[in-house]
Amino acid sequence: MTVIRTTLDRVLARINAIGRDGAGWTRPSYSALETAAHDVVAEEATALGLAVHRDAAGNLFARLPGRDRTAPAIHVGSHLDTVAQGGAFDGQAGVAGGLALIAALKADGRVPPVDIVLTVTRAEESVWFPASYLGSRALLGRWTRADLEVRRSDTGRTLADHMRDLGLDPEAALQTAPPPPARFVELHIEQGPVLHKAGESHAIVTGVRGGFRHRAARIQGIWAHSGGAPRADRADAVFALADLVHAMDAEWGQMLAAGDDLAVTFGIVDAAGPQHAMAKVPGAAGFCVDLRSDREEVLERAHGRLLDHVARIEAARPGIRFDLGAESRSTPVALSRAWQEDLSRAAGGTLRAMPSGGGHDAAAFAAAGWDATMLFIRNWNGSHCPEEGMDPADLALAVGTLRDAILEDPRHPSACQRDSSIP
Amino acid sequence: MTVIRTTLDRVLARINAIGRDGAGWTRPSYSALETAAHDVVAEEATALGLAVHRDAAGNLFARLPGRDRTAPAIHVGSHLDTVAQGGAFDGQAGVAGGLALIAALKADGRVPPVDIVLTVTRAEESVWFPASYLGSRALLGRWTRADLEVRRSDTGRTLADHMRDLGLDPEAALQTAPPPPARFVELHIEQGPVLHKAGESHAIVTGVRGGFRHRAARIQGIWAHSGGAPRADRADAVFALADLVHAMDAEWGQMLAAGDDLAVTFGIVDAAGPQHAMAKVPGAAGFCVDLRSDREEVLERAHGRLLDHVARIEAARPGIRFDLGAESRSTPVALSRAWQEDLSRAAGGTLRAMPSGGGHDAAAFAAAGWDATMLFIRNWNGSHCPEEGMDPADLALAVGTLRDAILEDPRHPSACQRDSSIP
Repeated sequence: MTVIRTTLDRVLARINAIGRDGAGWTRPSYSALETAAHDVVAEEATALGLAVHRDAAGNLFARLPGRDRTAPAIHVGSHLDTVAQGGAFDGQAGVAGGLALIAALKADGRVPPVDIVLTVTRAEESVWFPASYLGSRALLGRWTRADLEVRRSDTGRTLADHMRDLGLDPEAALQTAPPPPARFVELHIEQGPVLHKAGESHAIVTGVRGGFRHRAARIQGIWAHSGGAPRADRADAVFALADLVHAMDAEWGQMLAAGDDLAVTFGIVDAAGPQHAMAKVPGAAGFCVDLRSDREEVLERAHGRLLDHVARIEAARPGIRFDLGAESRSTPVALSRAWQEDLSRAAGGTLRAMPSGGGHDAAAFAAAGWDATMLFIRNWNGSHCPEEGMDPADLALAVGTLRDAILEDPRHPSACQRDSSIP
Repeated sequence: MTVIRTTLDRVLARINAIGRDGAGWTRPSYSALETAAHDVVAEEATALGLAVHRDAAGNLFARLPGRDRTAPAIHVGSHLDTVAQGGAFDGQAGVAGGLALIAALKADGRVPPVDIVLTVTRAEESVWFPASYLGSRALLGRWTRADLEVRRSDTGRTLADHMRDLGLDPEAALQTAPPPPARFVELHIEQGPVLHKAGESHAIVTGVRGGFRHRAARIQGIWAHSGGAPRADRADAVFALADLVHAMDAEWGQMLAAGDDLAVTFGIVDAAGPQHAMAKVPGAAGFCVDLRSDREEVLERAHGRLLDHVARIEAARPGIRFDLGAESRSTPVALSRAWQEDLSRAAGGTLRAMPSGGGHDAAAFAAAGWDATMLFIRNWNGSHCPEEGMDPADLALAVGTLRDAILEDPRHPSACQRDSSIP
């Protein structure tokens, strides 16, 4: 495992030298920092003797030829952008894992049964440009013109503008034809504590939850003096929001108890701008809400309950108006059963199979008809935070499982031959 | 009423030319903008022939001599600082009202029974320097060294620093000896809609609510991924805050139903900084809480319930910790019964008597043993907001009531003589 481990440690350290923000790591989607991280990977891939290619949307590919050059390739990778004040592993682990896989095959003189393509996507973290899986969908030929017009949440400038800043060609990316479906594997830290609590290093992912989100919801109430306004006359935006959060907490508990898969999160709660003061009844509040489930029907039902509660609260609190703003959705996706069997067999049948709560590039590939899978790596401190905690030894074990699954692939049974070109 | 009305209109317009911020008015306590507003009043008072004096803390006084120069004077005034994005009348109305009263007495050739002292205080809005009634307490000789060290909430610099910026002398202000108690009247917009709903132009204030506040409370939770973190493992700061707000809303309703006077306001709710994102379970939130009542015992009981709920929520949500931070209190104060009778009589017994929900300079004077009162002016749009809505005609009626009460003052029955110095 030495080559795997040394590659992981080096690549993670090199990538994480980019975008340190004092608290964690901030590499916005389609930023110069994201590009700099891609450049590190290009150097590493070139050093492994791979041909590096970038597409019009700035996704990076580095190909290791396999024995059967005509069979669908196995793409291995993830993304290198982060949320603001994100951690050291979300995205990075999958890219480093792909390089380590290829380095290990090279070091062992193994030629894979099919081409292995290290695939580093752009813009997976939709906090910057509020659209799902932008980089993956570009390489899958699934952009529409609306994607180019999505505005970055902090700069207000369009995706096309930010792409041009980096010398990329948004129109060419829009014209990308869908490639024939191939295979995709993403190594990624688990975003929850399940593996950590169970004492398991890695697991196979069975599917990716979909989401139903309002990214920029507002409550309008009536500004008033906190001492002078009688209770009955108040339209307090913070009380109204508390009503909604409290009600959806109860809904969530009930739906879980009934066996539904659901996660409910309210974030970016903002009732603290210059209009707000100690002695003011808040007349406005902003928030976002994020519903996730492995079933579309559950998402629709939870969203329906959200709307019911909004209507109830507006009726109970005259003067309060919710504006939930635009909604965005992603569809729950099932990942590959064939991959699941291959990976499980490679690991001796010991791997847990579990759903992913968070969205991942793998879901975009699966939605495009690819044979896509993921491996989760144990992580003891959540994700999207500076404290993300992954032991590279766990990632190395997952890379080993993936290598073995590829080399033992029953779909290409002659995989275990030595590469005759290496002495 | 012509002199009263023209004075009100001119003074309000001149003061409100200072500190426009695009949305409303922002004149921070002990800022150059507050000083500029005081300078307008000094000009107006000088034009009325009054001697203008400023104390070491920057409070302004303009004295109209009365017949009995040895009797306790009647101070009439209010403040000219505003909250951020405040309105056109909170504070301003009382200062303009004092000038209009004096202008009317002068115009009518009436000498009041005792000296009338227009009194313009500093720093009544404790959003800037988190301490109550700073200017009033300075002139009342009630500052402690701790007051000089209070830091402005946005600049982080001390009150003493900001005073020195304006050429004021904080040490001299600290040395001010308490003056002998006199009389104080404050004309002020009502901060609620009671008079507006009742169709009444002005009312007498019976007392000022006290408060129990945490100005900078924090909730610490655990940052996590909104898709990956199971419900049972979450320590979501926004859910914890919603629990507390929801619980205190219920407590408030119950205490009102039981006949207690109480107002509960949560403000400056901040879970929107750079660490927050759509796909993150919020690991932190900030807020302030403001409890107000006309009875100290009710404040203590409500605060006790707040602490009970905090403990309950921490127990129910492992990983959640509340830090309520420093608390600040102000004591409920009763205003003058004698003034109430005088004002009521002057208005023909028609005036409503009502408590004040907000804090006011008059409370500081009453707490120092002064014979203090207030008149509320109808206001249809709350206060501490750009929409404060007062008809100057209502203020003129209140000034008339005050003038009549002073001139008919049974405590100085010879008040109705003409000033022999005016032809």
